[in-house]
Amino acid sequence: MQKIYLAGPDVFLPDAVEIGRRKKELCARYGFEGLFPFDNEIDAKAAGADKLIYQANEAMIRRADLGICNLTPFRGASADAGTVFELGLLVGLGKRVYGYTNVTEDYIARCQKLGGASFDPARQVWRDANAMTVENFGNADNLMIDSALIVHGIHRIVRHAAAPERLFQDLTGFEICLRLAAEAVAKSA
Amino acid sequence: MQKIYLAGPDVFLPDAVEIGRRKKELCARYGFEGLFPFDNEIDAKAAGADKLIYQANEAMIRRADLGICNLTPFRGASADAGTVFELGLLVGLGKRVYGYTNVTEDYIARCQKLGGASFDPARQVWRDANAMTVENFGNADNLMIDSALIVHGIHRIVRHAAAPERLFQDLTGFEICLRLAAEAVAKSA
Repeated sequence: MQKIYLAGPDVFLPDAVEIGRRKKELCARYGFEGLFPFDNEIDAKAAGADKLIYQANEAMIRRADLGICNLTPFRGASADAGTVFELGLLVGLGKRVYGYTNVTEDYIARCQKLGGASFDPARQVWRDANAMTVENFGNADNLMIDSALIVHGIHRIVRHAAAPERLFQDLTGFEICLRLAAEAVAKSA
Repeated sequence: MQKIYLAGPDVFLPDAVEIGRRKKELCARYGFEGLFPFDNEIDAKAAGADKLIYQANEAMIRRADLGICNLTPFRGASADAGTVFELGLLVGLGKRVYGYTNVTEDYIARCQKLGGASFDPARQVWRDANAMTVENFGNADNLMIDSALIVHGIHRIVRHAAAPERLFQDLTGFEICLRLAAEAVAKSA
């Protein structure tokens, strides 16, 4: 049975244990074993807990066959930094990657709302308040994220419009990733 | 001569070419060859440019021996998502990693300013406006980033207080990373 690393800011939710349980249950329904970082039982209050959590997560990622990343924007224009790091790690380790986001708008639309973005007619690009270019490729996030999924997975980021109060709990996009992963396994069998 | 991949949101600066030139010049001064993503000459207006840029950056990272990542917070609480992805990729590919940030405050201090964070006395953790836990390990960013540098590099994130108007141009932290990398090479020789 293939193992899926479940990356996402879900671990920060007050009901993280319950979300992990639901994700692992869905994995089982599609013929996978889900690996949820919270299952590494580390006392976050202990000295050096951050490094221990890192090492446990990395070891879990190395054990996984593939990854499904929750790339919903988190505390800014982009996905959770921990999740994005793990996406890069999965790709570097040669694992297949899938990702979903619970908002449907493009990256540039979020940047326009967040910090303002204005068009630079001389260079024909969008710029933020620091005059730094804002990517406008119709992607959900930074091009490295969207393209990594296309180059190293089989599908672009799955976008689903979750209700605002279920932004981090809605598993519709997650289940679409699971279905795609299950189809890929069936096809290669 | 070892090659250093120069990751960072520097590529979004109006003077990206000049910053790349300065970084590569500093690399040479410390005995390294700097690889700057902008050196992949891709027309960003061409169809499918995002995927081509991704593939050129990934190929450049694979050619590199190590990476120095500009982890200055970008459009939110954390470092630039593209840079964080590349940090993960470097780690997955077994390259040594270094990183710097041009702000000195802890992650939690930024979260408190950005979106507000309040203390949950029942669970003894900090939470953001979505009730999601805010890490409080005294790190510069998400624990996966800080710990990756410690586990796979030789030094924690180098923090330097740049002047606000030189937030993305100040290369003091970058040069400290170069010095650390050069010392590591000398030691292993």
